[in-house]
Amino acid sequence: MLIIGENINATRKEVAQAITNRDCGFITELVSRMETAGADYIDVNAGSNHPTSKQKQEAMRWLVGTVQSVSCRPLVIDSDEAGVIEAALDIYSGENLIINSVTAEESRLCTIGGLASGKNAQLIALAMGATGIPDNTRERVENCNKIMQTLYKIGMQPEDVYFDPLVMPVSVDQAQALVTLDTIRAIKKEIPGAKTVMGLSNISFGLPGRKLINRTFLAMAAAAGLDGAILDPLDTRMMSLARAADVLTGKDKWCRRYARSYRQGKLDK
Amino acid sequence: MLIIGENINATRKEVAQAITNRDCGFITELVSRMETAGADYIDVNAGSNHPTSKQKQEAMRWLVGTVQSVSCRPLVIDSDEAGVIEAALDIYSGENLIINSVTAEESRLCTIGGLASGKNAQLIALAMGATGIPDNTRERVENCNKIMQTLYKIGMQPEDVYFDPLVMPVSVDQAQALVTLDTIRAIKKEIPGAKTVMGLSNISFGLPGRKLINRTFLAMAAAAGLDGAILDPLDTRMMSLARAADVLTGKDKWCRRYARSYRQGKLDK
Repeated sequence: MLIIGENINATRKEVAQAITNRDCGFITELVSRMETAGADYIDVNAGSNHPTSKQKQEAMRWLVGTVQSVSCRPLVIDSDEAGVIEAALDIYSGENLIINSVTAEESRLCTIGGLASGKNAQLIALAMGATGIPDNTRERVENCNKIMQTLYKIGMQPEDVYFDPLVMPVSVDQAQALVTLDTIRAIKKEIPGAKTVMGLSNISFGLPGRKLINRTFLAMAAAAGLDGAILDPLDTRMMSLARAADVLTGKDKWCRRYARSYRQGKLDK
Repeated sequence: MLIIGENINATRKEVAQAITNRDCGFITELVSRMETAGADYIDVNAGSNHPTSKQKQEAMRWLVGTVQSVSCRPLVIDSDEAGVIEAALDIYSGENLIINSVTAEESRLCTIGGLASGKNAQLIALAMGATGIPDNTRERVENCNKIMQTLYKIGMQPEDVYFDPLVMPVSVDQAQALVTLDTIRAIKKEIPGAKTVMGLSNISFGLPGRKLINRTFLAMAAAAGLDGAILDPLDTRMMSLARAADVLTGKDKWCRRYARSYRQGKLDK
């Protein structure tokens, strides 16, 4: 399971504050802790509340530079705006890179797909069309197929794409957890080579004990074939379940990483 | 998820001791704690180390009587010997009852199936043939079909049976966790109405942090459709994942039991 650390995100108040103040120390310390905890990629979102496009781009540029000053982990460039993604790509150093995210909405898909393709970056694509989030597996997979058809035209392959099966709160519709798990299986079956990734926290919206629901869902999703998760690597209980899931799904060959994490005292036994 | 408490089992030293000493206090206190923690059924195994068959039967009779003196929870009568099961049934009071366990081995299946049928008891049937534990889903499901064909002849229906998909250590063969999960799905598809149940601990044999592996596997099995688990209800982390799994699989309607457990402070958040 690829662990994408979600913490460097301006929707978190203290991160937004650090970006505004250009507080390198706060960001680099957080990144170091995420790395130690086992993040494979660092998601980087500089926020959308800056007054001008130029300022958004500057914030993203500063954030990418700051994270890369302390960590060799590859980044996930997370923005709705093509201009901000482009700004990040300009200064990004390193080979591996993921862009987060696109949907089946064609013009944006072509623009951002083009940026990804030009940089040999991988792409996170939500199983979402122009009309919003379908409540069923069938339409979600159709959106993925549609996205893949467009990406083929600009030279991308399924191996370059992480599809997000979409996660909706069970407090609103209790069938949604199983729909997401079905969608993971269906994507992996119908688009061979493509990978799947998702954030977890939406599943528990409106419920108490959200972290417990989130990590239980992670174990279920791992068994359905989930390749990557966007989560807080500092959540030891969550990370422990991710490591155990890798043992059970055969992704952690000979249980080596699990045993190492155990010896290092990193697991919530 | 039906929770079958595994603690009243003479393979546990202190339980064996309590049976030998006819220590009612030890057993009733343990049963009360299991009940408070959320056990739906209490598995009762009086052990096989008693010198004579008569003593085995007496031990089981005492144990069933002692457990039922303090708890209204239904029991799972757990023994290899038909005579011991019969002794338990003789003094058992209550409507619901499960007998644990049979395999595809025909003569024993007919004897114990007959006992179950005569008492309207349900049966736990291991997906195991005369030649041992198959390493693949196909043969396990064939064993289940064979068992069901025999049980039909004595008037039992799929609704009367909990099939155990069999759990083998991933430390020996890392593919085994996914084989078990596949077997759960296959049984539920091929024998409609039948339920599935399993113990968890075998999965983690030979690994460190066994409880972590066990509870991660429980979440995965719940998503595959597992109906019941034989586990230690006093393991709060395990029970928390079971409750969360019921929310995510839609078995806990409106999340009512989850919310109640949360309010009662029973969840490991």
